[in-house]
Amino acid sequence: MTILEIRPVMGIGEINPGDDLAGLIVDAISADGWTLEDKDVIVVTHKVVSKQEGRIAEVPDEATYRALIEDEAVRIVRRRGDLVIAQTRHGFICANAAVDRSNVAEGLALLLPVDPDRSAHRLRRLIERATGVSIAVIITDTFGRPWRRGLVDVAIGVSGIPSIVDLRGTTDAHGNELNVTEVAVVDEIAAAADLVMGKATQIPVAVVRGLDLEGAGRATDLVRPADEDLFR
Amino acid sequence: MTILEIRPVMGIGEINPGDDLAGLIVDAISADGWTLEDKDVIVVTHKVVSKQEGRIAEVPDEATYRALIEDEAVRIVRRRGDLVIAQTRHGFICANAAVDRSNVAEGLALLLPVDPDRSAHRLRRLIERATGVSIAVIITDTFGRPWRRGLVDVAIGVSGIPSIVDLRGTTDAHGNELNVTEVAVVDEIAAAADLVMGKATQIPVAVVRGLDLEGAGRATDLVRPADEDLFR
Repeated sequence: MTILEIRPVMGIGEINPGDDLAGLIVDAISADGWTLEDKDVIVVTHKVVSKQEGRIAEVPDEATYRALIEDEAVRIVRRRGDLVIAQTRHGFICANAAVDRSNVAEGLALLLPVDPDRSAHRLRRLIERATGVSIAVIITDTFGRPWRRGLVDVAIGVSGIPSIVDLRGTTDAHGNELNVTEVAVVDEIAAAADLVMGKATQIPVAVVRGLDLEGAGRATDLVRPADEDLFR
Repeated sequence: MTILEIRPVMGIGEINPGDDLAGLIVDAISADGWTLEDKDVIVVTHKVVSKQEGRIAEVPDEATYRALIEDEAVRIVRRRGDLVIAQTRHGFICANAAVDRSNVAEGLALLLPVDPDRSAHRLRRLIERATGVSIAVIITDTFGRPWRRGLVDVAIGVSGIPSIVDLRGTTDAHGNELNVTEVAVVDEIAAAADLVMGKATQIPVAVVRGLDLEGAGRATDLVRPADEDLFR
């Protein structure tokens, strides 16, 4: 039996623009008395990546914040009162076009990385260079969902792992062909990692150990094409 | 550091109506050489619960299958060609009103349990009686999402664990109050457990160990009220 393990990475402090995030992650794991292994999946909340990349905007007042949301959005999907559901440049559809005033000092807001798949790739290469092991990186954000209450973490940047595992063409135990069984594994991993992170705690990184997924994908693979989407 | 563990429960065979599912789970874990512990979360795909409860319908042809979907739906949310997104009696919104022709013999379809929260409660009580430990149970199904490709497992039945952890009123590391931070923890646990289950494999049960969540909720807590929902 393979047991999947999800380990929080403790002791990563406040991140500032230009910090060596890869080095801080590797050092924090080392200080905690363990080491990364081949096939580990490093899950990182975008908040620390955005800070490291300087994706921070000043929002001195509500009007500036509102204008920033409109600026980050390429399309408004729904609007009700102060609630804006919008599509980002990356294609993600989420509240406030992912402009986030939590987890930063008052008067500031975090934006998503410009290219989160590229951020994941860069972080992966730096961690691999520092450790000599072969890993994957998933960058996450916290999204709401239509129809279901509560937020869940999802993947917005991916490197070194497939985003979707396509089981079409395989059969179940009854010999039925599984027609539409594309599993969004990186979203499931993002959700799993959030269980050890917590929103109010300062644990922005977790390591998922025990998966063995061949292939490589991007988070943008998860964006449903407009012509397949019934809820635009 | 608390490591979260996700263990597949191997060796549970085909389930038939009236089977002692709780006993089969406990025996399979025992045969695999480990035992349940206090606070373990037992995650069970609804497919085995539905089979155990006899929630199986005959669908000899496509027309019968289509009629069954309409019958299980209380409201059609979207329809395009053969794709029907519908609300079930429980309030869940998903493809085909959760009528599922995979994982059963040809000519049959699985329906959701009549009351999955109650099914979870019953299974929990039976497992607790058999083992003497205090556990939680989550029953899952596999849902698509608007905007994002790929399926993820979500909770449709819950017992012994809060469905949503409400962090409103707590503050982040910067002293900002977290206004809208209700985390759908049981959906995150369902997604995490799916990582060791796999759709094409016969592993319908997993155990999540290392969580310590106080309280109790129901899966129906996750149903977003109509007046809060922008995507009905």
